[in-house]
Amino acid sequence: MNQPGGHDARYVLGIDFGTLSGRAVVVRVSDGAEVGSAVHPYRHGVIDTILPATGRDLPPDWALQDPDDYRDVLRTAPRQALASAGVAPDQVVGIGIDFTACTVLPVRRDGTPLCEMPQWRDRPHAYVKLWKHHAAQKQADRINAVAHERKEPWIGRYGGKISTEWQYAKALQVLVEDPEIYHQAERWIEAADWITWQMCGVETRNACTAGYKGIYQDGAYPTRDYLVAVHPGFGGFVDKLDHPIAPLGGRAGGLTAEAAGWTGLPEGIGVAVGNVDAHVTAAAAQALAPGRLVAIMGTSTCHVMNGERLAEVPGICGVVDGGISAGSWGYEAGQSGVGDIFAWYVEHAAPAPYASHETLSAAAARQPVGAHGLIALDWWNGNRSLLVNHELSGLIVGLTLATRPPDIYRALLESTAFGTRMIIEAFEEAGLPVNRLTIAGGLAGNQLLMQIYADVTRRALGVVGSTQGPALGSAIHAAVAAGCHPDVATASEAMGRVHPDQHRPDETRARAYDRLYAEYRILHDHLGRGGNDVMLRLRAIRNAALGGGS
Amino acid sequence: MNQPGGHDARYVLGIDFGTLSGRAVVVRVSDGAEVGSAVHPYRHGVIDTILPATGRDLPPDWALQDPDDYRDVLRTAPRQALASAGVAPDQVVGIGIDFTACTVLPVRRDGTPLCEMPQWRDRPHAYVKLWKHHAAQKQADRINAVAHERKEPWIGRYGGKISTEWQYAKALQVLVEDPEIYHQAERWIEAADWITWQMCGVETRNACTAGYKGIYQDGAYPTRDYLVAVHPGFGGFVDKLDHPIAPLGGRAGGLTAEAAGWTGLPEGIGVAVGNVDAHVTAAAAQALAPGRLVAIMGTSTCHVMNGERLAEVPGICGVVDGGISAGSWGYEAGQSGVGDIFAWYVEHAAPAPYASHETLSAAAARQPVGAHGLIALDWWNGNRSLLVNHELSGLIVGLTLATRPPDIYRALLESTAFGTRMIIEAFEEAGLPVNRLTIAGGLAGNQLLMQIYADVTRRALGVVGSTQGPALGSAIHAAVAAGCHPDVATASEAMGRVHPDQHRPDETRARAYDRLYAEYRILHDHLGRGGNDVMLRLRAIRNAALGGGS
Repeated sequence: MNQPGGHDARYVLGIDFGTLSGRAVVVRVSDGAEVGSAVHPYRHGVIDTILPATGRDLPPDWALQDPDDYRDVLRTAPRQALASAGVAPDQVVGIGIDFTACTVLPVRRDGTPLCEMPQWRDRPHAYVKLWKHHAAQKQADRINAVAHERKEPWIGRYGGKISTEWQYAKALQVLVEDPEIYHQAERWIEAADWITWQMCGVETRNACTAGYKGIYQDGAYPTRDYLVAVHPGFGGFVDKLDHPIAPLGGRAGGLTAEAAGWTGLPEGIGVAVGNVDAHVTAAAAQALAPGRLVAIMGTSTCHVMNGERLAEVPGICGVVDGGISAGSWGYEAGQSGVGDIFAWYVEHAAPAPYASHETLSAAAARQPVGAHGLIALDWWNGNRSLLVNHELSGLIVGLTLATRPPDIYRALLESTAFGTRMIIEAFEEAGLPVNRLTIAGGLAGNQLLMQIYADVTRRALGVVGSTQGPALGSAIHAAVAAGCHPDVATASEAMGRVHPDQHRPDETRARAYDRLYAEYRILHDHLGRGGNDVMLRLRAIRNAALGGGS
Repeated sequence: MNQPGGHDARYVLGIDFGTLSGRAVVVRVSDGAEVGSAVHPYRHGVIDTILPATGRDLPPDWALQDPDDYRDVLRTAPRQALASAGVAPDQVVGIGIDFTACTVLPVRRDGTPLCEMPQWRDRPHAYVKLWKHHAAQKQADRINAVAHERKEPWIGRYGGKISTEWQYAKALQVLVEDPEIYHQAERWIEAADWITWQMCGVETRNACTAGYKGIYQDGAYPTRDYLVAVHPGFGGFVDKLDHPIAPLGGRAGGLTAEAAGWTGLPEGIGVAVGNVDAHVTAAAAQALAPGRLVAIMGTSTCHVMNGERLAEVPGICGVVDGGISAGSWGYEAGQSGVGDIFAWYVEHAAPAPYASHETLSAAAARQPVGAHGLIALDWWNGNRSLLVNHELSGLIVGLTLATRPPDIYRALLESTAFGTRMIIEAFEEAGLPVNRLTIAGGLAGNQLLMQIYADVTRRALGVVGSTQGPALGSAIHAAVAAGCHPDVATASEAMGRVHPDQHRPDETRARAYDRLYAEYRILHDHLGRGGNDVMLRLRAIRNAALGGGS
């Protein structure tokens, strides 16, 4: 049988490791059809209040995970996904994963997590630090201050700021707060690379996290001199990272007998190099060519785009050679609050008759552009776009006694579209044209929101043709690692799925939005660039009033 | 019997003519005790959609009344109030009224309203124009433009702007839209003066409305030259107003036999010169001495204060010699949105569990100053304080995902307190010290709001000791007109009631508010004084989107 779905069809498995669960999707190599899937929630979820091993409280802003929860996903989800697909294990030729990032853990040279060694089981710093572990701000501040002092060449590639979420701040926190664990950690590794290591028995370091989270630029990590300047004991940190960098779509190794036992898959099949959820989605969206921006829109938005050349774009999260796909400069930018602002409005600010996205959207959709007379700045969760300041806050202007909930809701939707347009324009002003805009993530299904984005950005929007964009992207990388396609670009064309031009801009509305966007920019620059630092002062006043620190 | 309440005690009647009803209060002359009251709603209420005589629609922004509704108050409320008090009619020695303003009507030389003449009954312009009739903005714009062009000396006494609500704009609208009615109107008179005329059979013009609403300054109305420059047919308008000005507390005349029949009161008792609800409250608040500011706080706030000298204060509604009491310069200022902003929040912006003033106040009261991290500009209904621009709008800054309804509610309360502090400082910067602050009106009972005002203004607040401050003030004026007290100041000391120092400022909170007020001022000046006219542009965009005009 030569039919696409016949018994001789080949499949790959993509697994997306999220914040609360892992999802395995079975994908056909020839055309990317998703034929089955399964989800397995992490038993310990996010460990942010009490460490189970001790029953003791964790400090504020901590967020840990237990790495064996990731192995549990391998033990359960692939078998269930195959069963749901009716695909036999021997039809599966490769496996690939993507992960949240920067999610990072201390391990021994053989890959054993310190938290799985009985003597360190009760030490919080021995566990995985999840991406949203935010207790290392002081360390990040130090890292940035010294980088700017010393004019480190790489700092401009991260919009001038290394995040508290990334590898260095988190590791430095371990060094400062639990030096013994820091010294026991022979390796400091992204969970994406660690779970790949668990599957194939070989340590790899993927180009994506090494670049975006590990400050690996132009073939090198930050220098020992720099690290010593940050902290006298930090000079050897890079030894815990150092390893040849593996390209995305590369083969990390073959599935070990042990991992074959967990997954029920054939021993020896190709295991792809690890990847990150947002970046891997570009392959699913057939958006690897330069100038194709993918916005992964959920509680927050992550923007990824390949560029032909290196440029420093203000406020971006990072630019990494091969960070999205080998041979291009991968750019990442972000908006720190999007869906969570809309959720805040519905849960905490909408009167009863309006308290649902459906009701608000239906009423807001009937308004002509500008009829509500409002502008909002979408900084409820700070700004990690051009301004990179998490102490900025939200604003609404234009309120009157006639303002009603759909007015405010629509203004909030629009504010995030203006935020995206700011990012697009920053790319273009840096000489990186944005030719196409593709939307992925949970918000892609909101018709009103999508139309607003099309009108505000004056671009036809494509929508990724899978609700499991990251897992599909991982499957594409698995197919390349398994040798079924020559490279990720070819695999993406064959297996990715995008509905082009799903939402087209309307010229009249676009012109009306130009006027509102002009107002957004004026407020953005005045309140975000020193014209009036009222937001920062209000934050300081608030913190003092609540008796807190920063 | 010489007891205060004995059968030989003397009483006066104060009647407060509001927007929807008239309220009569029986007050003892000796000590101001309020012994009985009655309310009578206007049968036609506010005529703002359909003119009853024709059944035809009125244009937008119109607000008329039927003057016979005011007589109905005289026919019912005094008898009921006396009955509820157990006071005999022959114990009543005087009557005085206060009215909304500028509420104005066209009448014949004998006081007959044009709308009561069968041939004009179907003409909308023949009726009373209520204070909130807002359909004469174009006329007001013309009046102001010409005044500034010609540098009319009086314009500075009205904060640089004559309101669309006042006598001239409303009359000019009649001239332009229904010249026949304009020419039939031998007199153009405030309802305060007209209902007084109905009671005593003698036309008077009170110093308060003549000054604040009639541009009567330094013994003269605007010149014929000015009026002709505004409109060629408007030159004779002042002839419809001109009449000797009567001081507040003066005797307009004696109660006519006809009015005695309506009210059940003795013919010939003293009828006081008419007055305005806000201004008459100063007497009730024992606040006639210079530097005692009274804030009458309801849906909006009106501030009245006597000063020893003439000064031009930016943005005030007006300064009038004898406008509050004879012998002082009376200053009036205002905030166009106060209680109606709080009501907007509860009705249109608060989630279900919080949708009451009580719940929100209780939760907001527990917060330390500044803990919500918010600043609001209280311009939901425009600004008629220092900026005098009704196209300004509201703003909230500092919003985060952690912002909850009591945070926003408290920020709104505070914003109106900051607005009051701006007015107080404008007075003081003009050389008019504000020594004491007394609160009247419905919001005086909100403990949290009062404490915020005390802390923000760093002043102990007095509260008027009557829930019917205007009617009590009118009764005080009636007692003077009846000859029971030599002047209004003496009567106010004997009959007025204030609870001094009801709310004292706390120094720690006051210092914290100084920091927030500094932020309010920066935003106020930037957004209200040309730094960024975003609010005006958003209003224009909104109006264009809705297909409307201004």
